[in-house]
Amino acid sequence: MKENGKLKEAALSEVAHVKVHGRTTGSLAPLTLFWTGSAVEFNAKGSELWVEVEADYDVYEPWISIEINSFPVSRQMLTAGRYWVCVFRGMNEEAVKNVRIVRELQAMSDDPRCCLQIHAVRFDGEFLPVPDRALKLEFIGDSITSGEGVVGAKAEEDWIPMWFSATGNYTAMTAEALKADYRVLSQSGWGVLTSWDNNPNRNLPDYYGQVCGVLGGERNEALGASQANDFEAWQPDAVIVNLGTNDGGAFNSPEWTDPATGQVYKQRLNDDGTFNAEDLQAFEAAAESFLGKLRQYNPEAHIVWVYGMLGLPMMPAIYRAVNSYTAKSGDRKVSVFQLPNITEESVGARSHPGRLAHEQAARVLSAYLQEILHS
Amino acid sequence: MKENGKLKEAALSEVAHVKVHGRTTGSLAPLTLFWTGSAVEFNAKGSELWVEVEADYDVYEPWISIEINSFPVSRQMLTAGRYWVCVFRGMNEEAVKNVRIVRELQAMSDDPRCCLQIHAVRFDGEFLPVPDRALKLEFIGDSITSGEGVVGAKAEEDWIPMWFSATGNYTAMTAEALKADYRVLSQSGWGVLTSWDNNPNRNLPDYYGQVCGVLGGERNEALGASQANDFEAWQPDAVIVNLGTNDGGAFNSPEWTDPATGQVYKQRLNDDGTFNAEDLQAFEAAAESFLGKLRQYNPEAHIVWVYGMLGLPMMPAIYRAVNSYTAKSGDRKVSVFQLPNITEESVGARSHPGRLAHEQAARVLSAYLQEILHS
Amino acid sequence: MKENGKLKEAALSEVAHVKVHGRTTGSLAPLTLFWTGSAVEFNAKGSELWVEVEADYDVYEPWISIEINSFPVSRQMLTAGRYWVCVFRGMNEEAVKNVRIVRELQAMSDDPRCCLQIHAVRFDGEFLPVPDRALKLEFIGDSITSGEGVVGAKAEEDWIPMWFSATGNYTAMTAEALKADYRVLSQSGWGVLTSWDNNPNRNLPDYYGQVCGVLGGERNEALGASQANDFEAWQPDAVIVNLGTNDGGAFNSPEWTDPATGQVYKQRLNDDGTFNAEDLQAFEAAAESFLGKLRQYNPEAHIVWVYGMLGLPMMPAIYRAVNSYTAKSGDRKVSVFQLPNITEESVGARSHPGRLAHEQAARVLSAYLQEILHS
Amino acid sequence: MKENGKLKEAALSEVAHVKVHGRTTGSLAPLTLFWTGSAVEFNAKGSELWVEVEADYDVYEPWISIEINSFPVSRQMLTAGRYWVCVFRGMNEEAVKNVRIVRELQAMSDDPRCCLQIHAVRFDGEFLPVPDRALKLEFIGDSITSGEGVVGAKAEEDWIPMWFSATGNYTAMTAEALKADYRVLSQSGWGVLTSWDNNPNRNLPDYYGQVCGVLGGERNEALGASQANDFEAWQPDAVIVNLGTNDGGAFNSPEWTDPATGQVYKQRLNDDGTFNAEDLQAFEAAAESFLGKLRQYNPEAHIVWVYGMLGLPMMPAIYRAVNSYTAKSGDRKVSVFQLPNITEESVGARSHPGRLAHEQAARVLSAYLQEILHS
Repeated sequence: MKENGKLKEAALSEVAHVKVHGRTTGSLAPLTLFWTGSAVEFNAKGSELWVEVEADYDVYEPWISIEINSFPVSRQMLTAGRYWVCVFRGMNEEAVKNVRIVRELQAMSDDPRCCLQIHAVRFDGEFLPVPDRALKLEFIGDSITSGEGVVGAKAEEDWIPMWFSATGNYTAMTAEALKADYRVLSQSGWGVLTSWDNNPNRNLPDYYGQVCGVLGGERNEALGASQANDFEAWQPDAVIVNLGTNDGGAFNSPEWTDPATGQVYKQRLNDDGTFNAEDLQAFEAAAESFLGKLRQYNPEAHIVWVYGMLGLPMMPAIYRAVNSYTAKSGDRKVSVFQLPNITEESVGARSHPGRLAHEQAARVLSAYLQEILHS
Repeated sequence: MKENGKLKEAALSEVAHVKVHGRTTGSLAPLTLFWTGSAVEFNAKGSELWVEVEADYDVYEPWISIEINSFPVSRQMLTAGRYWVCVFRGMNEEAVKNVRIVRELQAMSDDPRCCLQIHAVRFDGEFLPVPDRALKLEFIGDSITSGEGVVGAKAEEDWIPMWFSATGNYTAMTAEALKADYRVLSQSGWGVLTSWDNNPNRNLPDYYGQVCGVLGGERNEALGASQANDFEAWQPDAVIVNLGTNDGGAFNSPEWTDPATGQVYKQRLNDDGTFNAEDLQAFEAAAESFLGKLRQYNPEAHIVWVYGMLGLPMMPAIYRAVNSYTAKSGDRKVSVFQLPNITEESVGARSHPGRLAHEQAARVLSAYLQEILHS
Repeated sequence: MKENGKLKEAALSEVAHVKVHGRTTGSLAPLTLFWTGSAVEFNAKGSELWVEVEADYDVYEPWISIEINSFPVSRQMLTAGRYWVCVFRGMNEEAVKNVRIVRELQAMSDDPRCCLQIHAVRFDGEFLPVPDRALKLEFIGDSITSGEGVVGAKAEEDWIPMWFSATGNYTAMTAEALKADYRVLSQSGWGVLTSWDNNPNRNLPDYYGQVCGVLGGERNEALGASQANDFEAWQPDAVIVNLGTNDGGAFNSPEWTDPATGQVYKQRLNDDGTFNAEDLQAFEAAAESFLGKLRQYNPEAHIVWVYGMLGLPMMPAIYRAVNSYTAKSGDRKVSVFQLPNITEESVGARSHPGRLAHEQAARVLSAYLQEILHS
Repeated sequence: MKENGKLKEAALSEVAHVKVHGRTTGSLAPLTLFWTGSAVEFNAKGSELWVEVEADYDVYEPWISIEINSFPVSRQMLTAGRYWVCVFRGMNEEAVKNVRIVRELQAMSDDPRCCLQIHAVRFDGEFLPVPDRALKLEFIGDSITSGEGVVGAKAEEDWIPMWFSATGNYTAMTAEALKADYRVLSQSGWGVLTSWDNNPNRNLPDYYGQVCGVLGGERNEALGASQANDFEAWQPDAVIVNLGTNDGGAFNSPEWTDPATGQVYKQRLNDDGTFNAEDLQAFEAAAESFLGKLRQYNPEAHIVWVYGMLGLPMMPAIYRAVNSYTAKSGDRKVSVFQLPNITEESVGARSHPGRLAHEQAARVLSAYLQEILHS
């Protein structure tokens, strides 16, 4: 191999212009990409660029996608270790390349050792500023929003990182359609009140105020995952909540027993198969409460609760929750929007929405957001 | 990272069931993937698989795609060195995964040092046989058939490996539609008689009999690239020739001077912009001769000359060449098929066909092949 | 013209097998097609078929579509008079043709003289039975459900029958997708509580119990339009209500003064542009009441309130109405389903949904109905 | 019905601005629409328009489509007689409507009595000039170009006018895409040398010089069908010839015996199923000769021979014919273009191309014409 003698190494914290996507502590030494869709972005004028990554995990390895001028050129597993990944080489040194290196895998609360960091770059050119986009979107969701099943054959059943994709799901597509910067907070299986299996600890609202509080373990603590998020630094124009699918599933799943207390949790069905009113009300209360929390942290944002890609059973309850919140608060910048259900054609791996389903969702959601954000 | 203690390393040559795609010398120690679309395929029953690759180059680095159960899960640049790449991990050890590791980059005749090899595997399971498919296709072409421009934004202009894709072009799609095994011989810029820039040495026909004769240099020689190909071992049901685009371009390009002899080569235009009859006839003679050569090596195959994805100027000459060959030989298993031209919507990077254009071409070509192969 | 000497004339009431679609009084002497989508259907084994129609109107002329074996072959204006229309001729006399003659225009409450009747047939063959389909659907709606704007260039602005289509709208498409018989009750501009211009008389619920009570005038009275509908004779599996769009529009339209009483009606906006709570509540009460009425007449049907093809402002109120109805009644067979909004691409004439918008609506609605009707 | 007292009747020949499409004798008293796609076009500023038509036939009745502002609003059979058809009514009298009344049925050489004429108009407004479009196209073809099978279910087998459509086939679509005026000469079953059943009289070239020479009988003679066409009055920019499909079929059809002379005609197959060389050569000679005739009448037009919607067997012969013509004449404005074959999805009635197939053909053909007409 011919060596490129012009490459110069620099810690990420020394790079003049680096744009970070996703919630972080602000640290660039190194930069930890906690959530799916988190990314580092450059406008790179030069011929060859490398980044030094560090990956670790017990079980679930992180994956990244690389986009050059908004086109996905590479997607790869990052096995454990600290090493250099070549982003591009052999390009015209005079042309400015927009580059994104995006975390494809959701924050892995099940594997506290799962970690993806970026330490440094090797480059033979100059980094130019990356302007912020005029619009900012924040997505909060579950496996759908984590892009679970976007990658992989329909027959796949393993729950592994390979089937997750940030860049191939509706969040990235919606942001691209609206030319928006965006962030994602998502946990596969989690809900508003409980997870799909009735675990009340696995709810997104409890962790909304933190950088990435869903991650436990000492290292994540040390990395600042449980710090308070700096909301002033990044205020979204719209917060899109795509939750409820797992809360609905909990009604059809076995009870969950808290190993610490022995307490048993279960969202119950009536004998006729309908939702138990009291338990459904608990979900609605949780949803209503979450809306208040979102408003507290995001005083100006439109809040849009979206739902429907894997069926509609919780929609009436979601409307009731939003209605109750609106009636009590007088807050008018909250709405509900139904997303298209998957079909035989659009389903992906693990019975989750495939790429086509995400494209369909992004098309209608971006049209809806366009309307409410510009009226 | 938790180590998987069950992984066992084996040289590729020791693996019980390995299927190789693309022309090779037959060697598995190591396996050299010369042409684009060349691949190693496994039916792997186990939870974790790694392959040991070796990549080298002066200028143009190889890329690979990994497909699990026919779904593309990863695409990555292989920088220089010998190292292990993880194919999958954490999967159900009882399920059989069909795995393909595919060379995404064409044989790089401009960089004799460009080389991609597979040495060994690490696996915790059992390899099962990979049956041959009932149908075999061979594609011969230029940049279109190399998938140049399938990857990358429309504005891209650099001629670099990143924009090439074997798995995203019409050859893979056509083979998939027909459930066929396939091989590709392609060189960007080359033609039947000359390359786009009038170089008469850059023609595919001269190298058809060899494993990968387009590659020069001592190492490729040592690896067997210039050996006679073993045609008996793999006889295609159809040979698809997608050449002529660069021969057409030569009429509009500057002359080429042979540095060794000083001889000047040029396909000439008449003053009125039409093709010089003598030079066009030279192309037709070369095409006709190539048909004879293809028939000699492939006594039973349907030969289909396809053309048109980047315009139609050579189509009458191609028809004349096929007509002349058929008239003289009585060979009835030769035909011509027009492929759809690119449009503003379907164009990819470097003004070449994008993925949509390849999908359109594959749709009509596979329907046509279906018809002639089953009648 | 060669006369077909075998044609025999018969009053419709004498025809052995005739299937009537849409609400009627049961009379076939003649048959009056009141509502859009109303139709007469034959399975006709013969070579040539004519029907004798009678059309009248002061302003708005009726249109029909003719479908042969489910394919639309003709669409034509019916000018005033009583005359024969040829349905088909010159066909194989041994083949059975399924034939539908469908009213394309909604019941025209603005033109009491508008009338479409079928008196008789001329035929040279035999009519075979037309079996009922396994599924029955009833649609209740406004201009969207009347297919206003399905026909015509986007620039069209006249409110005329030519732009209406029963066969090109989502009702026919949904029924076709589900292989269902269907009926439609729809009035352009009408709502649940009031019309788009605040007229409280123009509401569909008041007329639901009658054959076609929206039509006034002596002739319609004589034809039985205001008779009680025979609900026992035809019970739908699902009732799809697509109302609310005009109720929403009323908030943004001038007040309406009852010419008889001088009373003024207006759905009011608050100063901040939001809906007046009291007036919105009146809509919700009307919607809730309508659900009760629908259930009374259709004890077993799934009731689906659909909404969204021209925006979503009333959706929270619709959910509240359904919720309130469900809470009080315990009725579980009522749901809400959001239809896709029009886009620049899918809009038709008069700023109404075009054919593409209706296709999109039918695709998601039929998938949804499929799910709830088969679970 | 309220009478529109403002309607004034005028013979078509007295109308200030009327644009006629398709070959005619120039007579407007009445106007005879001979070929499919022939039409009368108005820019009508008024509220209500009627046309007086006269239809006759022994067997095959004519059909028309009505387009308002380029949108098809009506399609109807015209049974025998002379009567008034309402084109529109109740429209804004101040708006100008572009109106086309188009013959949907090909010239019916099998039924010399088949005739469609337009005598007069009733209108309450003013006709404005209809400008010629910048581009003119002429299409020559067989059943494909007659739009046979565009209308009707796939199962239909009768050969009747109902299944033919001018406005729903690739000729109208291509003209619309290129904003061109266009004419069509087409006969179902006919070819360049013979018809599908080896009748050498049923060839289009023999009649190209006449207005509509394919029509026999005294009345058509009297109407001027066999007059020399006035080529100076309308010179196309491109002549698109879509012939060869029936010439190919003749090889697989029984011989035809001339009832007058007893002479037997048959395009023969060799024992191995290939085309007899002599007979194929006769086709090529006929095609070559036709090109000369087309050039004689159209000195400046691009001539494009298109083929392939129902298979490709004659393509090599077509290329040879064009090649031979070009070689001898030096004429460079002649080319060949392959159209997409039908698929299971795109096939229409009577195993002919359906609307989707015509849309696909129009898309690629209009792109090709765009290229050659603007380069």
